[in-house]
Amino acid sequence: MLRCTLALFLMAAPALAEEVTTFALDNGLEVVVIEDHRAPVVTQMVWYRTGAADEAPGKSGIAHFLEHLMFKGTDTLAPGEFSATVEAQGGDDNAFTSWDYTAYFQRVAADRLDLMMQLESDRMRNLNILEDDIITERAVLIEERKQRTDSSPAALLQEQMRAAQFLNHPYRIPIIGWLHEMEALDREDALDHYKRFYAPNNAILVVAGDVTPDAVRAMAETHYGPLAPSDAITDRLRPAEPPQIAERRITLTDPRVSEPYVLRTYLAPERDPGDQEQAAALTLLAELLGGSGQTSLFAQGLQFGADPVAVYASAYYSGTAVDDGTFGLVVVPMPGVDLATAEAAMDDIIADFIETGPDADDLARIKTQIRASEIYARDNVDGLARRYGEALAVGLSVQDVQDWPAVLEAVTAEQIVEAARQVLNRDRAVTGWLMPEAEAAE
Amino acid sequence: MLRCTLALFLMAAPALAEEVTTFALDNGLEVVVIEDHRAPVVTQMVWYRTGAADEAPGKSGIAHFLEHLMFKGTDTLAPGEFSATVEAQGGDDNAFTSWDYTAYFQRVAADRLDLMMQLESDRMRNLNILEDDIITERAVLIEERKQRTDSSPAALLQEQMRAAQFLNHPYRIPIIGWLHEMEALDREDALDHYKRFYAPNNAILVVAGDVTPDAVRAMAETHYGPLAPSDAITDRLRPAEPPQIAERRITLTDPRVSEPYVLRTYLAPERDPGDQEQAAALTLLAELLGGSGQTSLFAQGLQFGADPVAVYASAYYSGTAVDDGTFGLVVVPMPGVDLATAEAAMDDIIADFIETGPDADDLARIKTQIRASEIYARDNVDGLARRYGEALAVGLSVQDVQDWPAVLEAVTAEQIVEAARQVLNRDRAVTGWLMPEAEAAE
Repeated sequence: MLRCTLALFLMAAPALAEEVTTFALDNGLEVVVIEDHRAPVVTQMVWYRTGAADEAPGKSGIAHFLEHLMFKGTDTLAPGEFSATVEAQGGDDNAFTSWDYTAYFQRVAADRLDLMMQLESDRMRNLNILEDDIITERAVLIEERKQRTDSSPAALLQEQMRAAQFLNHPYRIPIIGWLHEMEALDREDALDHYKRFYAPNNAILVVAGDVTPDAVRAMAETHYGPLAPSDAITDRLRPAEPPQIAERRITLTDPRVSEPYVLRTYLAPERDPGDQEQAAALTLLAELLGGSGQTSLFAQGLQFGADPVAVYASAYYSGTAVDDGTFGLVVVPMPGVDLATAEAAMDDIIADFIETGPDADDLARIKTQIRASEIYARDNVDGLARRYGEALAVGLSVQDVQDWPAVLEAVTAEQIVEAARQVLNRDRAVTGWLMPEAEAAE
Repeated sequence: MLRCTLALFLMAAPALAEEVTTFALDNGLEVVVIEDHRAPVVTQMVWYRTGAADEAPGKSGIAHFLEHLMFKGTDTLAPGEFSATVEAQGGDDNAFTSWDYTAYFQRVAADRLDLMMQLESDRMRNLNILEDDIITERAVLIEERKQRTDSSPAALLQEQMRAAQFLNHPYRIPIIGWLHEMEALDREDALDHYKRFYAPNNAILVVAGDVTPDAVRAMAETHYGPLAPSDAITDRLRPAEPPQIAERRITLTDPRVSEPYVLRTYLAPERDPGDQEQAAALTLLAELLGGSGQTSLFAQGLQFGADPVAVYASAYYSGTAVDDGTFGLVVVPMPGVDLATAEAAMDDIIADFIETGPDADDLARIKTQIRASEIYARDNVDGLARRYGEALAVGLSVQDVQDWPAVLEAVTAEQIVEAARQVLNRDRAVTGWLMPEAEAAE
């Protein structure tokens, strides 16, 4: 009943785009304004088109390191004063680094936006990096790596799998950095990365909330307008993958593993500007195979069927990237079921799916869920800011973002099967086994 | 009987080093002279300390491409005139590229050495790279790749395994280049590599044959002395490997495969200056496990035992490199024996070896063979030139080269077992299966 009601509601809802205005400053800064006047708050995000996949060879971790250093001082601001100021205004702020981008944001009362722009524009070009900050933050990051990666067999397996998934592309690099390279990162490395990539013509300013485009433009001209563009910004041409023609398998054995599992990643295409159909098909494929809830093919076939082999199974895909990424599968066997059995059961489901295609009701249900989440997404202005910022940071356009729901809606069963057939090819996959100890040889 | 006679002979032979003189020019060019006055011939080699592992990211193949372009013209020499001149003097010449070096050599009558130096010094700094040469040679190299790599499943498997073996280090790159990157290499890429790496202070001149050090020095001063050193030559710090902690397996299935086999490579340390003991132990280990002939453990256990499983099996290791390389194993099963069985039999032999250590007679036999090959090597002046040139190009010294036979001689059974225990660790290994078609799921 609930599902039926929801579907009727959704069909009635107009597929209107959110209120988005875009423009650019003369120095190349792209600006996106997302209006939402329901509450007197505003979020400012600045996205730089640089991430771990843009690091100099041997300097893994420098993009993320610099993200930390951006909270140190500038010519006019003492170290730590940035976040202290935001907090004193009742706001909060943070940042994150991915392979393709590094982003900074603050959420404050709408009348503090001018101050936020003053602060953010200041550190875009005037960062001071002190030797003491390097020493302190490097230690912090090494500790972060030890806690999040080195103490986690699962994280280590993913790191080793990623290095095997990408034969040539720098998506191979862990964002946090390889420990031995992190230990050697110095002030010069941070400055090199900062000077090369932090400039208005390599950034996107997203302002979302209780603002008008005119007000944003005036403030942006005041604060970001005077910043000189960099002439070092080039096309983002990273080393590309050669043909992947041989299945790879990785086993990580670690006595700390309490729950063995199988992880599989396939090299998978990303959303391309004006060409998002295959990525949309993969998005639906991930939902059909292993989306959340108890209705996915994995849930039904592996967890809740007549002969359950798994306590958990899922599939995931995100196509918002500059270059080819991954389509992932995970299956956690029930106690007593070995990894080979669980993996084979998962592969059987995939083979069946490619043979028979999606059930029409399943596909309709998934599309309804996606429509619903699109509608709910419009109520979350921070989520929208992130969506536009990320898309523009990886080379998509505002139009691509706004087309995406319709592209998802238009995907056919045949396109999903074809995407599965093309992408779920084990010659381009890495399969990881996480185990507490080696299984006896067969 | 023969073996006994040989051993007696070898024990009597003095372990004298060959006649080697070294010096350097003021511009940094290192010179090695190996005298051999038995015949009036001479070999000139110039080794550059740059190879595929020194290429700019995304420019795979450029080191080898440049090697080809070095046979085109200079300011004073027409394209092709270099080799034509060598040939007109009754000599021959060639070149080769590895991950760590690129080398050029000519073998001519001893009185033509001056001319050879004139030619070789000319192209060290005065190469002309024409757009037409780029187009022609790029097509030649792409064809070479297609013939040697893309048409060979075995070569493709090795390429994919190498990319999985090295998580971070550029030894991952194929020397010939990834096809999609080769296709994009242009004149600017070649010039960048040439200008950056081709200079007297990044080169080693080896002259071997019927010459005196004084004569070589005088000619070298005349021809190479005027060349300016480059200030762009830095330490060869490539991105290093993070810990390898998870076994990797790769299966390449190709209908063109007529003989399935198993290939295993382990990350293995190289010879270090003044510290060659572990590399020496690995050299002996490779001989004991899978050296040529019918007496290795693999030959006895896999090919000629009571229950033979393989038609061929071997082990190989070469430690002459700048950074950690690989220790390799290969086993080709008998028809009807599957890859898993052959691989397990190979691993059993390794496990037994680590448990029990080498048979004393086997070790003595291997050492005798090595002593013999060292003595024979001294009669091959071209081989010596290559040995010194390669060693110096990867950072070893003349002393390291001359110590190497004694270091090999001094290796103990315990050191070999310890090296096997440390290096033959499957967490740091890639195992490749080459098959004509997928085996049925078990």
